[in-house]
Amino acid sequence: MGVHEASKGKCNEDLENERRKCSFDPIELTHFLDGGAEKTRERKERETFFLSDADLQDDVPDHFLSHADKYRNSVRKACKIFRKIKELQSQAGGVDSYRQLLGGQLGGAILKDGNPLTLHYVMFIPALMGQATLEQQAYWVSRAWSLDILGTYAQTELGHGTFIRGLETTATYDPSTEEFVFNSPTLTSYKWWPGGLGHTANYAVVVAQLITKGERHGIHPFVVQLRDEDTHMPMPGIKIGEIGTKLGMNATNNGYLGFENVRVPRDNMLMKNAQVLPDGTFIKSPSSKLTYGPMVFVRVVIVQDCATFLSKAVTIATRYSAVRRQSELVPGEREPQIIDYRTQQYKLFPHIASCLAMKFASNWIWDMYNNVTSEIEEGDLDKLPELHAMSCCMKAVCTADAAWGVETLRLSCGGHGYMTCSNLPSTYGLVSAACTYEGENTVLLLQTARYLMKAYQQAMSGQEMTPTVSYLKNQPGMKRRPWKNTIATYVQAYKDVAAGKISLCAKSIGRRSKNMSPEDAWNMTSIELTQCSEAHCRAFIVERFAETVRDSNFSVPLQQTMDHLCELYAVFWILIKVGDFLMFTSLSPSDVEYLRERQVWLLQAIRPQAVGLVDGFDLHDMVLGSALGAWDGQVYERLFAEAQKSPLNSQPVDEESFNKYLKPLLRANL
Amino acid sequence: MGVHEASKGKCNEDLENERRKCSFDPIELTHFLDGGAEKTRERKERETFFLSDADLQDDVPDHFLSHADKYRNSVRKACKIFRKIKELQSQAGGVDSYRQLLGGQLGGAILKDGNPLTLHYVMFIPALMGQATLEQQAYWVSRAWSLDILGTYAQTELGHGTFIRGLETTATYDPSTEEFVFNSPTLTSYKWWPGGLGHTANYAVVVAQLITKGERHGIHPFVVQLRDEDTHMPMPGIKIGEIGTKLGMNATNNGYLGFENVRVPRDNMLMKNAQVLPDGTFIKSPSSKLTYGPMVFVRVVIVQDCATFLSKAVTIATRYSAVRRQSELVPGEREPQIIDYRTQQYKLFPHIASCLAMKFASNWIWDMYNNVTSEIEEGDLDKLPELHAMSCCMKAVCTADAAWGVETLRLSCGGHGYMTCSNLPSTYGLVSAACTYEGENTVLLLQTARYLMKAYQQAMSGQEMTPTVSYLKNQPGMKRRPWKNTIATYVQAYKDVAAGKISLCAKSIGRRSKNMSPEDAWNMTSIELTQCSEAHCRAFIVERFAETVRDSNFSVPLQQTMDHLCELYAVFWILIKVGDFLMFTSLSPSDVEYLRERQVWLLQAIRPQAVGLVDGFDLHDMVLGSALGAWDGQVYERLFAEAQKSPLNSQPVDEESFNKYLKPLLRANL
Repeated sequence: MGVHEASKGKCNEDLENERRKCSFDPIELTHFLDGGAEKTRERKERETFFLSDADLQDDVPDHFLSHADKYRNSVRKACKIFRKIKELQSQAGGVDSYRQLLGGQLGGAILKDGNPLTLHYVMFIPALMGQATLEQQAYWVSRAWSLDILGTYAQTELGHGTFIRGLETTATYDPSTEEFVFNSPTLTSYKWWPGGLGHTANYAVVVAQLITKGERHGIHPFVVQLRDEDTHMPMPGIKIGEIGTKLGMNATNNGYLGFENVRVPRDNMLMKNAQVLPDGTFIKSPSSKLTYGPMVFVRVVIVQDCATFLSKAVTIATRYSAVRRQSELVPGEREPQIIDYRTQQYKLFPHIASCLAMKFASNWIWDMYNNVTSEIEEGDLDKLPELHAMSCCMKAVCTADAAWGVETLRLSCGGHGYMTCSNLPSTYGLVSAACTYEGENTVLLLQTARYLMKAYQQAMSGQEMTPTVSYLKNQPGMKRRPWKNTIATYVQAYKDVAAGKISLCAKSIGRRSKNMSPEDAWNMTSIELTQCSEAHCRAFIVERFAETVRDSNFSVPLQQTMDHLCELYAVFWILIKVGDFLMFTSLSPSDVEYLRERQVWLLQAIRPQAVGLVDGFDLHDMVLGSALGAWDGQVYERLFAEAQKSPLNSQPVDEESFNKYLKPLLRANL
Repeated sequence: MGVHEASKGKCNEDLENERRKCSFDPIELTHFLDGGAEKTRERKERETFFLSDADLQDDVPDHFLSHADKYRNSVRKACKIFRKIKELQSQAGGVDSYRQLLGGQLGGAILKDGNPLTLHYVMFIPALMGQATLEQQAYWVSRAWSLDILGTYAQTELGHGTFIRGLETTATYDPSTEEFVFNSPTLTSYKWWPGGLGHTANYAVVVAQLITKGERHGIHPFVVQLRDEDTHMPMPGIKIGEIGTKLGMNATNNGYLGFENVRVPRDNMLMKNAQVLPDGTFIKSPSSKLTYGPMVFVRVVIVQDCATFLSKAVTIATRYSAVRRQSELVPGEREPQIIDYRTQQYKLFPHIASCLAMKFASNWIWDMYNNVTSEIEEGDLDKLPELHAMSCCMKAVCTADAAWGVETLRLSCGGHGYMTCSNLPSTYGLVSAACTYEGENTVLLLQTARYLMKAYQQAMSGQEMTPTVSYLKNQPGMKRRPWKNTIATYVQAYKDVAAGKISLCAKSIGRRSKNMSPEDAWNMTSIELTQCSEAHCRAFIVERFAETVRDSNFSVPLQQTMDHLCELYAVFWILIKVGDFLMFTSLSPSDVEYLRERQVWLLQAIRPQAVGLVDGFDLHDMVLGSALGAWDGQVYERLFAEAQKSPLNSQPVDEESFNKYLKPLLRANL
């Protein structure tokens, strides 16, 4: 049944059993998620092209290497990947490959802990395309595209991440030579974090405070050469290096960068928006709103990546839970598969549902993004604030859900989940980073909250509401809607909770503003404001899940399972936030008892479909990269084989540590 | 004011300001936590003895090394520590040093990612002392104590952790030679996980299934020689190595161990309890209940360690939050310290309270443990089940709280918290491991739940109740108690929630048992059962916190802050579990609004004391091991200095990666 079946070796019996029990064909789910059978075929072709290349595989896994050797091996593989991409480009179909290889599933299969060249394609080239004039693009994009130069994007500084207006690096225009002079006036102004900056890139788009004719004009982007194109030596006045090891992404070569009177030609300022004329005259950008677009795009991609990370973790943990047997449910009987424990199902199945929820909700935003983008081109910016607000809270909620999910799933695998070769620790490192980068989650939730407070005022004054906040209009009636145990009631209840919390916050701010400044009132209410955004986002996700499941054309058995997953998702989050539902809807304590029983019932109903569901995610064994999660379920054999790869195990005695340290200690008494 | 002040260099101004604002003297808290000024002095003396030793410091931090080199460096330092301990032993005061050096603060300052020799003292010697006869102890303990041999404790197998009755390694007695023959009948029977087993220990206490005269007699402990005492080569039939890298503890040299007809003298079976006579006759142990004791002990130590890990993280994050300035609260004003954001306070201060809560609750269990232990010696085992139940849920709840806390605190430091040199990732790795080892958390919560279900039946039948469950007696009245905003009401409310949840579970199990086996009814109810144990534990912790704060003899300003922290802890968890309080107590939605405002008020009240509080935890800079958390608050200088230690930064160009990979890629177009 499974899509991999033909190509694999002997399977664990329990897993085979699970596959027989599943009521639907996993390939139906695979095609649905890929967007059709043809897309599945294309994806698999690309996987074969990259993953069957022996040069991209390691005999000794990177996690046994020193930090410097990890970097070298990742540069080696990244260069090899880029060559292969060029090969594909010549055949067409290139763009999808970039996406796959730089963030998504495929890249992570080859470079488990990050790619030092990623930012060249993900940030450097897009920054040039978005902010350079056509003339500048003709020169820089073509050099970048042909890999004549390798770039990165340097914005964040030691002292400033969130608040980019506070960046300190200066670019002071010198009309006598028609150059900008770059300086790092403080230690905190050093650029810090850009991927590939340490030892890899030779160019960067650098964001700096523009000063001309003695006046500051805010932050602007410039192309700066970092290293000599032949020798790779740092250019004069460039102070550069890598920032050291991290929780994850240890192969991305994140770097630091300081400037001491570094001279950059005037032409290197990216002048699509603002400009500096040869005499130093500053010409302002006509509009700044347009910069929202790329941020929305990046956040949607992050949500999609989160869904991928979570689906990896849930595939690994679900298969392991089917193979692992432990303890006894009934004395004297065979040890059960741990997937039969209700507490284990509770750790697994809500996250299967969560993968789908994220995917469906991000699809909707993706469509909205494309619509809004074409409207913007026609000069209509009306929907931009709604799109921006929705992308902020989605990024925050989905990265947090995914990080929590991956960690729950890792812990559900017990001690073996703690091992690097389970690939769960490294997946956590990657997904958890997304809680911080591209907008710290609390900051983003407060941005959405700002929008919600405005929307609430509009609703109160009877204005027309945009779709994602239209629920704020019907507020007063919410406590009167009777509770029914249907998806429709649940969806409405999520909206009622969001509306109730938003209304309370608006009132708190109003009340507090009488005794203090609006800024202080906002700060005093900010904990609850983040919770408003969460509630708003959860309502959005649940509604998208319910719609998608309702409107798709599944076979009967898959339809039933998708209905169950959607209901589980809704019930699971109601029970976690049950206080909100008791306060803002007509949910009663006896309804809560019903929901608890229903949750157990749903877990039981999903139980026989669980392995089929994760098989349907169709993640290649190399994408999973896990001894616990492989298709064949040979968990113990793979754990043992991975241990044998440790260089420490190549000799029966580690002579250095024994002779130098242990032996003298043991012989000290003789 | 601060205890460190005299000995340190120039401080960050914002931190100095905070220290001036604090209303109490942090040293009062330090002495209280240490157990008196004399204890503080002793601790600091020990810190100086170890931490000022240049041999125990590294020029290149371990995280830049390969896995094998990390191991070698940790063996080097561990041997040095053991020599220093011996030095101390000759002066007396040795036992405290062991505790400090093997788990607690001091050990982690020197060996950040684990000590390959720890299990020699923590498991090997205690196992010998607990399970060997006096004669056996005379031989083995003295050899172990004088470091004539190095041991570990091998119980967990690839296929069995939680369910130790399921262990598969066999020890078959051969009366003809008076030896046990050890075998690993399956791959899953390989020992897997013991620290120091890989390449370090030459002996182990091995737990195996005893077979004699053709009959199985369950699991028993044996001393087995693993490696030749001179050459360190594995003994015949011993298959041994290390298991590879992990999320954390990468210097502990966790190993695997397989047996192929390994012969072990009969005398090596530890025979304090069960015995095998020379002819193979098996003599049963008189009682098995006594084995609870060491488990309780280990779990109390884990809770104390969790409090330490969390206090490290909260010290780092609080100091960083006082130093870091970002964004603007009021347009045009200076960027505020991020500790002034209410959302940031919400991420920090509840965890300051949590450190104290864990410490106070574990003190109580420690006292109970000592009382119960002396009662046991007099043959009275009555309180053992209560002690065991309390230690199970405390271990589960505190490890989970600490892991969540450390991660929240790490995220509160933004990108810089992601860096290894913040020491937050590694702290997370260590604390998170404790959620799994020494009893997986879900399993432990279900053990406590088992006790609670019994206690509930006893309460219903009007029996006398032991102290920690006496609240189950007063149940029916709980909804009628009026809500007041006092600590006494909160404490009672926590008990009412626990009682309400326990009662519902008992009824669910009863109802379900009519239609299914008791085992299935238990499994169906198990998600809620874990929540009962959590609620029970939280009520216990809150009550201990309130008692301790009430009964201690603090100065007025410290008393006020401790009162605030205790109230914050109580309110924080009520709001997180607000649904339970709405259902099982007389808390109303308007009370909830009051509590939310009160929480904000408490955060504000604690704000000026925050740095003083973490200063009072008095963690040495080397114990913190963090660029973000040091006493002087020179965050950016330290981050930069740590980056300079990366071997990749020793040359301006990494010639290997440039010449071999990057240059050919960049030149491919020429």
